[in-house]
Amino acid sequence: MIKEIAAQTGVAFTLKKGEKLKVIDPQGKQVSDMVLFNKQDPREKISSGKTLDFEECILITKGNYLWSNRSRKMMEILEDTNGRNDFLLAPCSPETFKIMYNNPEYHPSCFENLYTNLEPYGISADDVPTAFNIFMNVQFDAKGKISVLPPLSKPNDFVLFEAQMDLIVALTACSAEDSNGGSFKPIHYGILKDN
Amino acid sequence: MIKEIAAQTGVAFTLKKGEKLKVIDPQGKQVSDMVLFNKQDPREKISSGKTLDFEECILITKGNYLWSNRSRKMMEILEDTNGRNDFLLAPCSPETFKIMYNNPEYHPSCFENLYTNLEPYGISADDVPTAFNIFMNVQFDAKGKISVLPPLSKPNDFVLFEAQMDLIVALTACSAEDSNGGSFKPIHYGILKDN
Repeated sequence: MIKEIAAQTGVAFTLKKGEKLKVIDPQGKQVSDMVLFNKQDPREKISSGKTLDFEECILITKGNYLWSNRSRKMMEILEDTNGRNDFLLAPCSPETFKIMYNNPEYHPSCFENLYTNLEPYGISADDVPTAFNIFMNVQFDAKGKISVLPPLSKPNDFVLFEAQMDLIVALTACSAEDSNGGSFKPIHYGILKDN
Repeated sequence: MIKEIAAQTGVAFTLKKGEKLKVIDPQGKQVSDMVLFNKQDPREKISSGKTLDFEECILITKGNYLWSNRSRKMMEILEDTNGRNDFLLAPCSPETFKIMYNNPEYHPSCFENLYTNLEPYGISADDVPTAFNIFMNVQFDAKGKISVLPPLSKPNDFVLFEAQMDLIVALTACSAEDSNGGSFKPIHYGILKDN
């Protein structure tokens, strides 16, 4: 069953080892930030630094694993029809909009949507690590200069993950203008229990 | 006063807002991993994801700030005579040597040297984030492929940081063969209280 994450919101849920998670961009050009925690001990969580190190690549896609801060595999990426994701940048937060967008008003953010949905699992804002940013199109040049461009994803592009341990997953439909080509769309996801 | 971190070891200490920290590679080609915590509340800590986002660059050097997971500035980089550091890769850990070096024996690691020195401050292994890897020469190509090459640092190259808040700092002389051109050297550091 496919569920919808409304624009600029998020969800959290558990996923058992061996279950598959399909994250779909139904309209195209929409980012989804994902963080992972070990369900048995949420102090173990997804780590950008460990993933880029073990996978020896900045660009993480089909065939790569997502690793934890305890150097264990959390998910394998089985399919990636778009092929561009980001694992460099932290989730957009209230300060992102103040500092980078010069917007002092309230603005929804992935950070808020992650930690508010994770609170029932005993996970707080300070525990939220750098997210795996599905469909996010972050370009970099040889000098390391970073540019956030509109996603390359087309309608119904998806990434399929398989859990390597029992997980708590939090997932958003990203709230940042620049990351999503200037408009906010929903994200769809489904849990495949056997396949 | 300049102090020495012996090869394959680490230290932790506090640094007051406004104090400067000079990290020196006395012999050249030696990496030093650094992590930072807010002294008043160590749940606030250095964040690669927030730093790369706010500084809009993968390569962090003179003129850049190191940011926390709460989107606050922790350090400014005032000088960097070598100019190449890494903020992509997690500290080398026992698993690094098992998984990437195929070495099942005990091996000293930055991760162990960070968390054992941070334990007196109430900071545990699970709290250690991706470190700012001073002098580390991580190259990447347009496809994101990562290569760890020997440091470009020459004897007495240094990086000078200024604390933007009261900090707990942990610092190592890195223990990984590939990161240090195959040999393990000491790191020197000094705290400059007024300058």
